Parts: sequence; C-alpha cells; structure tokens
Amino acid sequence: MRNLFLKINYVGTNYNGFQSQPQKNTIEDKLKAAIEKLTGEKVKIISSGRTDAGVHARGQVCNFHTSSPIPEENWCMALNTLLPHDIVVLEAKEVATEFHARRFAKRKTYRYTINPDRFIDVFQRGFQLHHPGKLEVESMIEALDAIVGAHDFTSFCSVRTDKLDRIRTIFEARLEQADPAYLGAKRPIHIYISGSGFLYNMVRIIAGTLIQVGEGKRSSQDMRRILDGKNRALAGPTAPSHGLILWSVEYD
Amino acid sequence: MRNLFLKINYVGTNYNGFQSQPQKNTIEDKLKAAIEKLTGEKVKIISSGRTDAGVHARGQVCNFHTSSPIPEENWCMALNTLLPHDIVVLEAKEVATEFHARRFAKRKTYRYTINPDRFIDVFQRGFQLHHPGKLEVESMIEALDAIVGAHDFTSFCSVRTDKLDRIRTIFEARLEQADPAYLGAKRPIHIYISGSGFLYNMVRIIAGTLIQVGEGKRSSQDMRRILDGKNRALAGPTAPSHGLILWSVEYD
Repeated sequence: MRNLFLKINYVGTNYNGFQSQPQKNTIEDKLKAAIEKLTGEKVKIISSGRTDAGVHARGQVCNFHTSSPIPEENWCMALNTLLPHDIVVLEAKEVATEFHARRFAKRKTYRYTINPDRFIDVFQRGFQLHHPGKLEVESMIEALDAIVGAHDFTSFCSVRTDKLDRIRTIFEARLEQADPAYLGAKRPIHIYISGSGFLYNMVRIIAGTLIQVGEGKRSSQDMRRILDGKNRALAGPTAPSHGLILWSVEYD
Repeated sequence: MRNLFLKINYVGTNYNGFQSQPQKNTIEDKLKAAIEKLTGEKVKIISSGRTDAGVHARGQVCNFHTSSPIPEENWCMALNTLLPHDIVVLEAKEVATEFHARRFAKRKTYRYTINPDRFIDVFQRGFQLHHPGKLEVESMIEALDAIVGAHDFTSFCSVRTDKLDRIRTIFEARLEQADPAYLGAKRPIHIYISGSGFLYNMVRIIAGTLIQVGEGKRSSQDMRRILDGKNRALAGPTAPSHGLILWSVEYD
C-alpha cells in the first residue's frame, strides 16, 4: 500500500466541518467520494485535525493509504476535476508508510480575522468577522503575549471537549493589520496563533476574548488571570467560525 | 428636492448587472427597493455607468433626487439594513442639484484580475479569472502601453453597442502582480485601466487580448494594429465578467 500526503484548501462556508458525520455535508465526505471515484477504493482519511463547521483551511494536510498505481504527479489534477469548486488539492505526494497527518504534525497555525470597519466588506465577508467599532490594537497585542508558552488552556476550551490533558504549547501569537485594501477591505486585523496543538474552539475563544480586550471591556492583564483560573466561564465568547482559517500545518 | 450621492460596493456574482431590466435581478432594483422602503418614494437612480452581469464594483457612484428629510448621516446605515449582504452603501451625502453621476464623472478605473496559478484560489475564485499557465508579464505591460491616450476603440467594443462615437481617452493603464498571498492567492495579476469613459465590454476585450499576448499567441505590437484596424474581429475574446471590478469613479 502507498501512503499519500495531500495538502488542501477549502472554503468552509457550505460544510459541516472537516470530519464525516452521519447526514452531514463535510469536506472529508467530498474527498472520500473523489478518491473512490478515481481509484474504486473506499479509503480512510487522516487529517492534521478536524476543523469546525464554517471554518476554512489554507493548508490542511491529510493522508490515506491506497493501492492505486496512479502516478504521484497526476493526483492533484485528477482529484480537482472531481471535487467541488470550494475544495482544491494543491499538493499530492507519496510519503513513508508510517506518516500520519495528525501524529506527525509539529506546528499548526490558525488565523482569525476581524474587520473593525463601519461597513461590511462585501468581498471578504465570508472570511472575516465584521465587528464595527474601535479596537485597541495595542492592548490586544499585550493580551496575546500572555498565551505564548506552555499553559493549561482549560479556560479557552469548549466544555464539550473530551480531552483531559488541556496543556498546549503556543510557539507564537501575533497580530497584524492587513495592507490597505485587498478589494474593499479597510485594514482588517489578522491574529495568527501557532502551536503544538489546539483544543476544541480554542482559537475562537481566544479571539472572542481578545475582542473584549480591544473594546476595553477587559484589561490586557486579564488574559493571564483567565488562564490561571482554568474555567471556561472566565473567558470571552466563542468568536464566529467564518473568521477562522487553518493557515498552515508543518512537519519535520 | 434633495440630490443624494451614494458610493456603493457590490459583489456582482448573483446579479444581472447594475441596470434594471424586466424580469431580471439587478443592483439598481435592490437599491430602488431599499430607498422606497425607507422613504416611501419611487426614485430614479443615475449611476456613473452600468456594469454587466457578474461584474463587481468597489466604488460605484450613483445619485437620486428625494424629498425625504432623513439626515445625511443616517442614510448609509438605514439603507444597509435594507440591502442584501452583497451590496453595501459606503458613503451618502447631499450634493448640488445639478450633480449627475454619469455626466459629472471625470475618471473611471476598472481592474481586471487573472490568476495564472496551476490551481484555483478557492477564496478569490469569484473575483479573478483562473487562467493556469505561464503569462509573459513584460509583453502584457508593453501591449498595455499602446492603449494609453485618445483612440478609437471600435476594435475593443462589443458589436452590440449603440454608441457611434468610439473615441475614448485612457489616462493610465498598468499591470501589477499582487503581494504574495492574501489567503491562498499565488500572485494574481491585476490590470488597472483608468479613462474618461469605456465602451461596452471594452475592458474585458482588452483583458482577453492581453491574455493572448501573455500566452505568446500575439506580439505586444499587435495592440496598436488592432486599434488601427477598427474592427472587433481583430481583437481577442471577451474575458469573463467575474474577473472585472469597477474600481473607482472620480469627480472634480
């Protein structure tokens, strides 16, 4: 059996997340259907991690085992002709049998985007949270610094998690204001967070809390107190899924 | 009667262009319906110019006369709550009675975007032509230079036009490769063309011809010969509407 690595992009808007679920429309289902159509095989897809309903991905990675003889260089085009227009395979290559997209991932980066402009950006509305009003970017940057390092992220994790170990390491967390105007955009705020792994809703709860800091409803010092409290109720709301994108997944 | 100036953005994907037509879904219809709901008045909307089905706008300008007493600063919000999510009013102000969005326009700029990457950019696919393959950008820039100035643009005008005067002045025409990666984008090519006015399909025919220059199917010198020939059949195909955006309209 060959082990195939895929790097894919998708717009999550019309999907119930990555992972297959009964009666739902998911990215995984579309990938499986395309692979089955191409190879005649029903495969098991391993992703670097699921993404929630509505969340996008720019660098999702998955792998699957296949006995298909299709040459490495033909997979992208062949799968892309079978996939809907909001999912695209950018890279396909054969990897070592033991490669596992989730277990081998060393670093994942998510991006959360907030548009603080008075009016919605019609061109980017599917990819950013429209949150009109002034945001204190300097306070948000200070707050963001507090999450870097190894911490128990219980406060920034949905209570619906089944994970017992809530310690995750954040390697880097930064905030950028976009260059003026890709199409209509008025300097949206991008929050990039890179870590060893993430808990359920973690980036969205961090984003929701940072917005409260930006609005002045919380001080930037709160972030550390929330971490220390290990209680979901201490953090801010879960920011909407459409502002979130799985930006990249890195391997050795 | 007050004369109101509006600056609007829209995603043209789901519309049959700007101008009202029987049994069609147009931007103008949506604006009229929102204004009527707000003021109780049926108004006549004058735009800087129609945009074709599927074409977007970042800085469309229109005006209309109204006897409504609604304060200037309330129009944007009020209209935006009544408009669909792919149309947004960014500016509303009272202007002199004689102001006319089309006749007073001094300079209009359109942008046409081509993505030459091997794979579709799922995030921008509604706003750029996916045209995979190498494009000779230097030749395209040379070709673009030929259209600057006052020319008879018959060759770059749909035969369905009703305009007899085909002389238009292009003030500026430039090609830019976008910064790497707004989301997944692999350096799309943006063509900006500014002029006194444009004929029917003019920018899309220029874009379609430039693509042939970029592919090496035509030389960059062809552009001048096509202009001189004053015959639509000499130019390239009309590029698809979704890559085109009315970028800005300027007034004195």
